Formats: sequence, C-alpha cells, structure tokens
Amino acid sequence: MTIALDAMGGDLAPQEPVAGALLARRELGIEVALVGPGDAIRSELARQGVPADEFEIVEATEVIAMEDSPAQAVRQKKDASINVAMGLIKDGRASAVVSAGNTGAVMASALLKLGRVRGVERPAIGAMAPYTETGILVLDVGANADCKASWLVQFAQMGSLYMEKVFGIAKPRVGLLNIGEEDTKGNELTQEVYGRLRETPIEFIGNVEPDRVHLVGIDVLVTDGFTGNVAVKVTEGAADFIFRELREAIMSRLHYKAAAAVLRPALMQMRSKMDSGEYGGAPLLGVDGVVIVSHGRADAAAIKNGLRLAQDAAESGMLDALRGTLESTRIAGANGAAAVSPTPGETTV
Amino acid sequence: MTIALDAMGGDLAPQEPVAGALLARRELGIEVALVGPGDAIRSELARQGVPADEFEIVEATEVIAMEDSPAQAVRQKKDASINVAMGLIKDGRASAVVSAGNTGAVMASALLKLGRVRGVERPAIGAMAPYTETGILVLDVGANADCKASWLVQFAQMGSLYMEKVFGIAKPRVGLLNIGEEDTKGNELTQEVYGRLRETPIEFIGNVEPDRVHLVGIDVLVTDGFTGNVAVKVTEGAADFIFRELREAIMSRLHYKAAAAVLRPALMQMRSKMDSGEYGGAPLLGVDGVVIVSHGRADAAAIKNGLRLAQDAAESGMLDALRGTLESTRIAGANGAAAVSPTPGETTV
Repeated sequence: MTIALDAMGGDLAPQEPVAGALLARRELGIEVALVGPGDAIRSELARQGVPADEFEIVEATEVIAMEDSPAQAVRQKKDASINVAMGLIKDGRASAVVSAGNTGAVMASALLKLGRVRGVERPAIGAMAPYTETGILVLDVGANADCKASWLVQFAQMGSLYMEKVFGIAKPRVGLLNIGEEDTKGNELTQEVYGRLRETPIEFIGNVEPDRVHLVGIDVLVTDGFTGNVAVKVTEGAADFIFRELREAIMSRLHYKAAAAVLRPALMQMRSKMDSGEYGGAPLLGVDGVVIVSHGRADAAAIKNGLRLAQDAAESGMLDALRGTLESTRIAGANGAAAVSPTPGETTV
Repeated sequence: MTIALDAMGGDLAPQEPVAGALLARRELGIEVALVGPGDAIRSELARQGVPADEFEIVEATEVIAMEDSPAQAVRQKKDASINVAMGLIKDGRASAVVSAGNTGAVMASALLKLGRVRGVERPAIGAMAPYTETGILVLDVGANADCKASWLVQFAQMGSLYMEKVFGIAKPRVGLLNIGEEDTKGNELTQEVYGRLRETPIEFIGNVEPDRVHLVGIDVLVTDGFTGNVAVKVTEGAADFIFRELREAIMSRLHYKAAAAVLRPALMQMRSKMDSGEYGGAPLLGVDGVVIVSHGRADAAAIKNGLRLAQDAAESGMLDALRGTLESTRIAGANGAAAVSPTPGETTV
C-alpha cells in the first residue's frame, strides 16, 4: 500500500513533507510516493542526507500557491502536484493522498480527479477538535458555506462511519452544533436537520451548545460549512489570544518568569494540544478516495501522523462502507428530497 | 438619573444584584431602583446589613425562571420583575434597565414594553469580546437566528453608534465576521452584506476571519445571531477547556504545583479576563430604551459594572443618536429593500 504525499503542499514544503515522509517510512514502515517537481524533491532529499532511491518520486511540474484561487488553479495547473497525487489514486497506484496544501485546492482537485462517492450530495471537510483522546470530528468546516438540511444529514452519516471504521468507535455519538439544547432552538436549517437526524439509525444525541462541545462526550459534531469554519477558527483565535496574554503576563514579573520556566513543559504541551497537528489531519469525506488534509503549518511529525492516518483510513474499509451506506440512503431517499446535484459547489476555504 | 435593576435576574439573584446595587450606590453614587418581590429584596437587604430605605424598591410579584420559555413567560407573567423594570423606563421613572436574567426574556420584555426604535428592522443582542481594553462589540449574538442582509447593515450602524457614543471612539472600526478575507468569500448573506456595508458611511474595514478577531484592531464585529452566538460560546468553551487542562497538567506534578502557586495571580487574571463580567454587560440595541444584560453568573462587581455601563449609556445620548440615524437611513432606504417587519421575531437564546 502506497500513500501519495503532495511534497509541495503547505507553508513548509518541501522540507517538512519530505522529512515527514522519512519519519513515516523509517518509524512506521509506510510506503510513501513523493509527488512534485523531481529536482526540488531530490535536492531536498540530498540536503536531508536521504538516498534518492529510498522514495518513489512522481514528477509533477506545477505547484499551487497559497494565494492562488484554489478552484481555478486546480483546473488551470493540470500538472500541479495535488492533481498528480489524486491521479495516483485514480490509477490504483496509491491508496490515499496526504497534502498540507490549501484545503480548498485539495477539495477542488479531489472533486476534479476522483469525483464524489455515488449518492453523496456534497462532500465535506472535516477537522478534529482537540477535546478528546481521539478528537471530535467536526464537519463541514468549509466546503459548503450555504447548506441544505439533507447535506448535513449526510455529513452526520459520513462522520459517523469515519469515526467507526478508522478509530474503531462502535457507535459514534453524533451531535448537532446549535444555539440551544431544545429541539425548537436554532435557525431554520438546524431545526430541520434536528428532525431528520432523529429518523436516521445513527447515534444522534441531539443539539450541542457551542460552549459544551468539550463536555458532552461526542465523537462527531455536525454543522454547516460556514458555522463550522467559524467555530474551528474562533477556537484557534481564542487559544492564540490566551497563550499570548499568558506569555505577556509571565514576562511582566521576574518571579513569574522563574515559575513559568518550571511550568514550561506543561504549557507547551497544552499549546500543542490546541494545535491540530497531533491528529495528523482531517479527512475530506464524500470524495471518491481517501484524502487527508494536514495543517498548512504541519511539521515533519504532523506529516508523519497524517501519513499514518491516511494508511489507517485506507486500510479501514471506510470508503467502501461509505459507498454502501450513502448509495442505499440515496435510493431509500429521505422524502425523496435529497436529489443529487450535478454541479458540486466550489469550496469556500 | 435612576437605573432600574432586575433584582431577580441571574443565577445568583437576589444576593448578587442587591450586593452589586450597594457597590454601585456607595462607590459610584448611582441611584438604583431594585425591582422584584419586596419581601425577598428587603430580607436580602437586611441579610447584607443594608438599611431598607437606602434603595427605592419597586414591587414585582412574578419571576421568570431560567427554564421558562422566554417569550411566553414575558407575555404570561405580566408582573415579572423584568417587565416591571422596563415599565419604569416607559414611565420615565428610570433611564435604563440592567438585568442578569435570561437574555431572551430581557429582549422579549424590551420588545413588549418599549418596542423598537423607529426604523429598526430587528434589534440585536451585543456581547463584548475581551480582546481589547474597551472590548469588541459583537452583534448579533442571538436575537435573530436567520438574518437578512439589511438587518446586518443596521447592526453595523447601531454597533458603531454605540461604541462612538458610550466609549468615545471617534470612528469605530467595523468588521464583518466571515470565512475568508476577500470580498468574494463567505456565504450568500455575508457576500451581500459586504457589498452593502461598503456603501455606508461607517468605517467598514472589511471581512474579519474568525481566528483574527483579536489581531485586526476592530471595535465592532457584525454577524448574524446564529453565528455570533456560536462564536461567543465557542470562545467560552475553548477558554474553559484550556484552563481545565492547564489545571490538570499542573496538578499532575508536585514541582508544577509550587510553580503554579507563584503564577496563580497571573493565571487568575487571565481567566477572569476571558469572562465577560469585567465589561459589565452587553447592550440590547434597537429597542427603544437603554437595556444592559449582564452575565447570568454576574457577581456583585459585575452587576456594579453593569449599572455603571447603563448610566454611561443613558447619559451618552446613544439612544437619541440611534433614533436619528436609523430613522433617516430607513427613509433614505438602501434600495428600498429594508421594509420594516411588523412582527419582531422571537429571540432564540
């Protein structure tokens, strides 16, 4: 089983992806194909003292920059590393793709090259909230800014399957992010989704208020892509603010500094816990392939974790389960309302 | 100038409201009318050793509980303390109302008793994000779960006026909470609002990404009530999680404990900064009176701050400015689209 790694994805490419591939290969025995401009990859391998023949290198001449419009760049730069990586799944040469590149570009490329799983109305971008050992899968966090109720029902199904297959959680507990606990609370969308989720066989535990996500014991949190993106980024902003202020407070007094030096390992551990790197990455769910997006600032360790997660996900049979479930759901047709749109929306992040 | 205080509002009523009124009166010379069941208030005053004649007590026989449906309870319990307090504004006996009660109930009562400022389509609930000295006014945070673009434009206008009049900020900088910086980003609502805000005379600085609210130097952050409620509560949840984990990490090692004891003042200060109590409360904007909602767990100090804020707001001429601006905006009519709805929506929080 080979995992294709977008060697040019992320702020720290190609250095960290290459270093991460090396860790994954040497520590975990994962076969990694490095996708990108061969010269750049070979010179980075040489710089890190790695024999050039230790990795399969798959040539891709173009690179998508962080400032490119994702959907456009993916279509215009046909030989971009992310497109070539997706092509490896399509051709059966890789079992999964890992990229730390622009999430919107990765989603656009997956849709272009792999398409959606039959029956999926809209794919979703997942993110792991760092509130439990395994993490809570939040979806959608940005693929779909305006959502229909039926899409959120599918997000719940896909998220539940992912957590079950990849992490072995027997009956993943699924919550709906909402501004109030009672079934009458929320906006039009969440009120409709609430009613529909109660009719599915998934373990739907009801509405989850945004300040209680870390307290209620869920595995999956369902929301529309706008709200999910806000929730994930607000969390990052709050953590950043808290650690900034804490650092400033500590620096203001000499005796604080000494005490903080002792506490440093605990503080650093806390800080890194709030980063998503430890989870390796977040899945794109609903595209017809196993695709893991790592954080744009992913270091070698985070890339390694991403490669491990991708291999676990590919081995888990998650995709087959998804194909089976979503297609049958579609045929069963919740009120027949879930028509499959022919034009997947452009991602918004 | 008298400020009416809902003595029965909040989790810690009547104890903390009464204690807060005492602080406000003795430290700041604010005239406070205590509204609620006279017996309960008098016995609480006695318990705190305060002469019963130090405060005007306004009898209200009913109390709205946190578990009541806000809009219903306000209509059914005509003699609820919050309704009676609003009546004092209406009768010219008070210049403002402060309550730590259920925000939805306070909003419903304000709409019932005071109505909206002429020209206001929907009132909004504000909240202060603790990221600057003055705080950033976020609105709406829950009065309107589903919003129209014209409502958000008014939220921006009202928020800007509030920060200008009450806090003396000459040209408040207003941002639109959105999932991307560029004008093409976001959902249908934010894309439309972005275009409209550019045409107003307010200092609109553009889209603000949720992880950059604390970095971009804004005074007002505009959003719909669903997203705003999620953003505020997610921030609270993240802060709660971080401080919980930090405490656990500290408790895990003996030498951490000793160091943490030294750092305790800095940590506590940080923790309380993330609470909203320091700002005294958040305004209801668009209702025809000065109404400040304090946090449900407001202690005496927070209530005192709320009373001071209410007095400042009442003295600032904020309400008159709002009346002038909103009415003229309405007549100028942004595309004539901003029709005034005859039925104010029920609050969702």
